[in-house]
Amino acid sequence: MIQSIIKNVKNAPHSGHLASYIPALANQSKDLFAACLVDERGEILTFGDVDYLFTLQSISKVMSFIVAADHLGLDRVLEKVDVEPTGDPFNSIVRLEVAEKGKPFNPMINAGAITVASLLPGDSVESRVKSVTDFISKVTGRQHSVNQEVYQSEIETAYRNRAIANYLKANDYLIGTVDEALETYLQLCSIEVSTVDLAKFGLFLANDGLPLNENTKLITRKTAQFSKALMMTCGLYNTSGKYAATIGIPMKSGVSGGVLCTVQDGQVEHLKGHMGIAVFSPMIDEIGNSVKGMDFLQQLSDYYKLSVF
Amino acid sequence: MIQSIIKNVKNAPHSGHLASYIPALANQSKDLFAACLVDERGEILTFGDVDYLFTLQSISKVMSFIVAADHLGLDRVLEKVDVEPTGDPFNSIVRLEVAEKGKPFNPMINAGAITVASLLPGDSVESRVKSVTDFISKVTGRQHSVNQEVYQSEIETAYRNRAIANYLKANDYLIGTVDEALETYLQLCSIEVSTVDLAKFGLFLANDGLPLNENTKLITRKTAQFSKALMMTCGLYNTSGKYAATIGIPMKSGVSGGVLCTVQDGQVEHLKGHMGIAVFSPMIDEIGNSVKGMDFLQQLSDYYKLSVF
Amino acid sequence: MIQSIIKNVKNAPHSGHLASYIPALANQSKDLFAACLVDERGEILTFGDVDYLFTLQSISKVMSFIVAADHLGLDRVLEKVDVEPTGDPFNSIVRLEVAEKGKPFNPMINAGAITVASLLPGDSVESRVKSVTDFISKVTGRQHSVNQEVYQSEIETAYRNRAIANYLKANDYLIGTVDEALETYLQLCSIEVSTVDLAKFGLFLANDGLPLNENTKLITRKTAQFSKALMMTCGLYNTSGKYAATIGIPMKSGVSGGVLCTVQDGQVEHLKGHMGIAVFSPMIDEIGNSVKGMDFLQQLSDYYKLSVF
Amino acid sequence: MIQSIIKNVKNAPHSGHLASYIPALANQSKDLFAACLVDERGEILTFGDVDYLFTLQSISKVMSFIVAADHLGLDRVLEKVDVEPTGDPFNSIVRLEVAEKGKPFNPMINAGAITVASLLPGDSVESRVKSVTDFISKVTGRQHSVNQEVYQSEIETAYRNRAIANYLKANDYLIGTVDEALETYLQLCSIEVSTVDLAKFGLFLANDGLPLNENTKLITRKTAQFSKALMMTCGLYNTSGKYAATIGIPMKSGVSGGVLCTVQDGQVEHLKGHMGIAVFSPMIDEIGNSVKGMDFLQQLSDYYKLSVF
Repeated sequence: MIQSIIKNVKNAPHSGHLASYIPALANQSKDLFAACLVDERGEILTFGDVDYLFTLQSISKVMSFIVAADHLGLDRVLEKVDVEPTGDPFNSIVRLEVAEKGKPFNPMINAGAITVASLLPGDSVESRVKSVTDFISKVTGRQHSVNQEVYQSEIETAYRNRAIANYLKANDYLIGTVDEALETYLQLCSIEVSTVDLAKFGLFLANDGLPLNENTKLITRKTAQFSKALMMTCGLYNTSGKYAATIGIPMKSGVSGGVLCTVQDGQVEHLKGHMGIAVFSPMIDEIGNSVKGMDFLQQLSDYYKLSVF
Repeated sequence: MIQSIIKNVKNAPHSGHLASYIPALANQSKDLFAACLVDERGEILTFGDVDYLFTLQSISKVMSFIVAADHLGLDRVLEKVDVEPTGDPFNSIVRLEVAEKGKPFNPMINAGAITVASLLPGDSVESRVKSVTDFISKVTGRQHSVNQEVYQSEIETAYRNRAIANYLKANDYLIGTVDEALETYLQLCSIEVSTVDLAKFGLFLANDGLPLNENTKLITRKTAQFSKALMMTCGLYNTSGKYAATIGIPMKSGVSGGVLCTVQDGQVEHLKGHMGIAVFSPMIDEIGNSVKGMDFLQQLSDYYKLSVF
Repeated sequence: MIQSIIKNVKNAPHSGHLASYIPALANQSKDLFAACLVDERGEILTFGDVDYLFTLQSISKVMSFIVAADHLGLDRVLEKVDVEPTGDPFNSIVRLEVAEKGKPFNPMINAGAITVASLLPGDSVESRVKSVTDFISKVTGRQHSVNQEVYQSEIETAYRNRAIANYLKANDYLIGTVDEALETYLQLCSIEVSTVDLAKFGLFLANDGLPLNENTKLITRKTAQFSKALMMTCGLYNTSGKYAATIGIPMKSGVSGGVLCTVQDGQVEHLKGHMGIAVFSPMIDEIGNSVKGMDFLQQLSDYYKLSVF
Repeated sequence: MIQSIIKNVKNAPHSGHLASYIPALANQSKDLFAACLVDERGEILTFGDVDYLFTLQSISKVMSFIVAADHLGLDRVLEKVDVEPTGDPFNSIVRLEVAEKGKPFNPMINAGAITVASLLPGDSVESRVKSVTDFISKVTGRQHSVNQEVYQSEIETAYRNRAIANYLKANDYLIGTVDEALETYLQLCSIEVSTVDLAKFGLFLANDGLPLNENTKLITRKTAQFSKALMMTCGLYNTSGKYAATIGIPMKSGVSGGVLCTVQDGQVEHLKGHMGIAVFSPMIDEIGNSVKGMDFLQQLSDYYKLSVF
């Protein structure tokens, strides 16, 4: 049955648009499509361009939160960023100013993620970014690096993010310099992964921190719980509530077209138990979610009853 | 083990305060405590004052959403109210005005619930309220009525809610008159239930609309899913995100001190599978959640691993 | 020269629209035009339909502020309403909620004027409204009454104002009941005056409270100063700043098409010294100011150098 | 009589505080006091430390607006910044985001002044700053320069202003780079003047652009009008409305403790006609206005009837 879902989604006419704010994203082929599911025993299903590399963009917010929480302890991270959903688009400043003291609402919006970037281990942008790429490598089993072309494009036009970062600094929600935090954040957004990598990361979350084929958990159960809850309540910008209701699994999307998902307990064909799921298709809607990605996940969740609700 | 959790929670020193804005709530005994769990087979655990009647307050937002969706169809309800969490306290007007067109963010905040109250079946306040009490009766197996003393107190000081209702009307998010919507909403808040009733309602949601000991589902799977997702993402005012991370089950609290919970699949002592859980203790924190109620649910979820994350 | 200004303005093609939210305003003839200037010696210039009666609408905010200040003392009025301009349209709720404690910004926006209406002398809506009509009569020398048709239309659709009034009550910036304050406010908006009446009121302000042909000041110098300063900084909704720069005299407009002006010291033809000026033309722009009215005042101020700047 | 006002004000006990955000301001002597009045014939009154140099801070917003309007034309400046008062403290971001398209409300708040700084003539920070110091020199008859120590302190902690500048750039309300605009703005704030210089500038405005002892107007009548109207409606942060009512002349204050005033027509002792007034005392209130400065101006306006209202 999953074959037929894939076929439906791939053959559907395109809607949405390629992310247009940087050339590297605007020039992707709109026909790219990949999906991957992997379960706790290592059983795997792959469809389409699963080795194509794309940048994490907002999906990196999950990884950086985990690394910061692992480094400083969850409680100290929560002193600098709340975990409440906002209903606002991901780069709003109004929320920062109206909320008491300017504390960012959660690590899945830009403000929160910039704060989190400033909390990563290391004494330079490079070492902080490396703390995240190294961590992802432990989960995926291969090296990851920053796409410098994408990063350069991002940083040249990051006026709104730079405004947010300065505002956070003014209110003491940023460690170190504004430039370091912003550069770290944008480099994290530019880390490249494949759809298979993302699916493995989803499994790692379902496993509460145990990578595929490993024996040692990398993070605490509580950090895993917070990460998954944040993905459920805030993972899809200001459509998180709608998709929690209709799809019902923790997900995090990025404007490059990827979606990271984690399933606590389910069965899809011969896969079962904890599962990681990832999908990639670069045409996004006006909210910033992959159109075909969300379509695939909706049909998958409906047919295989993956919703936690 | 649950006995010991109950004992811990009951014996802990009181913190928080009784809801003070109306006499009926301010005069409750702060020592009241009740908890009830019931599973899909009818197995039940009860502790404390489980037959004590209290008013639903914000918990009624779940019931009215369900009845409106059952009556009009979910899609027509969603034309008038979104399902996105907000991170704002439950009676904010700023959110209404800054968001495009003044559409209320979700049915769990006052604005959304007042809109939903205006969408209930019936041609009078009485018939609309009766549509909800009748519905609750089908789930609990006994009659429910409005506590008129509480209602009178509520309506006399409902300036902020009346402001919201007029604002909704000005923006065409209210059917009928402002007074009807507001009176309906406040009567719904004043419906009395016991902790056992609430637990049965939680089971009904876990069952996707099937009441205990019945053969017929009362609502669609989709309406049940939306209700549970809304409870998870917006059920506990602006601490919903935190409790999704730490407790991880759909919950809805009210300032009277009750909390409604639903568990999709779990095991607590000899209870298992779908479960409804309710807890009641009238001392609330500054957010509006029962202090001992949340404490009980946290320990229960931790010990019996009830979180969906 | 003033003849030629009048001719220019009257003959210019119409732009703008009639206020459309109530029938009484929507059905006015768009060709109505009147202007009147009167100086401290009683010299008077009149043009067009100067005896045509129209409703004060927002212009009444000046009169009610004066009566309330005269009754309670300026300081006690300022405890309930600030005198700061806002840059916001006249019926915003955001400003109320974001500002500390919900205090209305000034008496020239709806929120402030509703608060002021609740501070008028009297123990009923009728007596409060009468306190203002009586006061206007002392200035104009003739009786004034409420246009009941306009008032009925206003009150039927006053959702946004009713939202504001309830919000003010919730924050303790309203004396008495919400209904009384709102009814008083809307009756004040519906008081009828002629263009000649308004010009006399403008002169009364320039005279610091001395009506034409009278010997006794009705109000304190300080109340007159506050009224004129408020007209300058907040009298023309969110175009007050622009017109302060270009026309430069205290003015207050209403959506019925009238504009009240006061000139501290000037010369227009054979008129000189303190002057009152009023203009009326019912076609308004999207802000709510009379298009031909503002056009006339701009040319008048430019030619006769009436700006205080 | 003015001698006695001066004595009263100087001898009054201190209240308020020294601006504390940079050392250069925090270390001023709180006993410094200066006042200067000069009329169109060159008659002058001086009191206290009138040659003491202090930095313009927010007073520079008047000068930069004038130079930008003179350079580009008023209309082109108004495309990038409105002239509406806001009722908000001077460094708010909420106003920028809620207002349509992020256009700054007026040139007297930080957002508007940063935009204006980006519109100054020149192709470097230095040349833009020089355009303003040169302009001030034409008015005062002596050289002005930037206090580099103050500027360095300012720029090191300018997180909030940098946030605003980036936000303006993101919304296309800034010409050139963010760094250039911000550096220009902060250098302008750090230009040093004496109280006599400021009084001459006030006279220049009253003269509609004619410096003392000169024959040629430097700016258009319209630019002078806009400048004075902006000072009246927005010159004193969110107390502008109050002081327009009580003092009633165009004024602009800075956190260094200076206040620039302009009087269109008045008489103070043997001075008369157009007048410039300046006062300096470094202890400021929580709004940012000089406590003794405002006290002096209030008494002066009351006694000599300087209010335009």
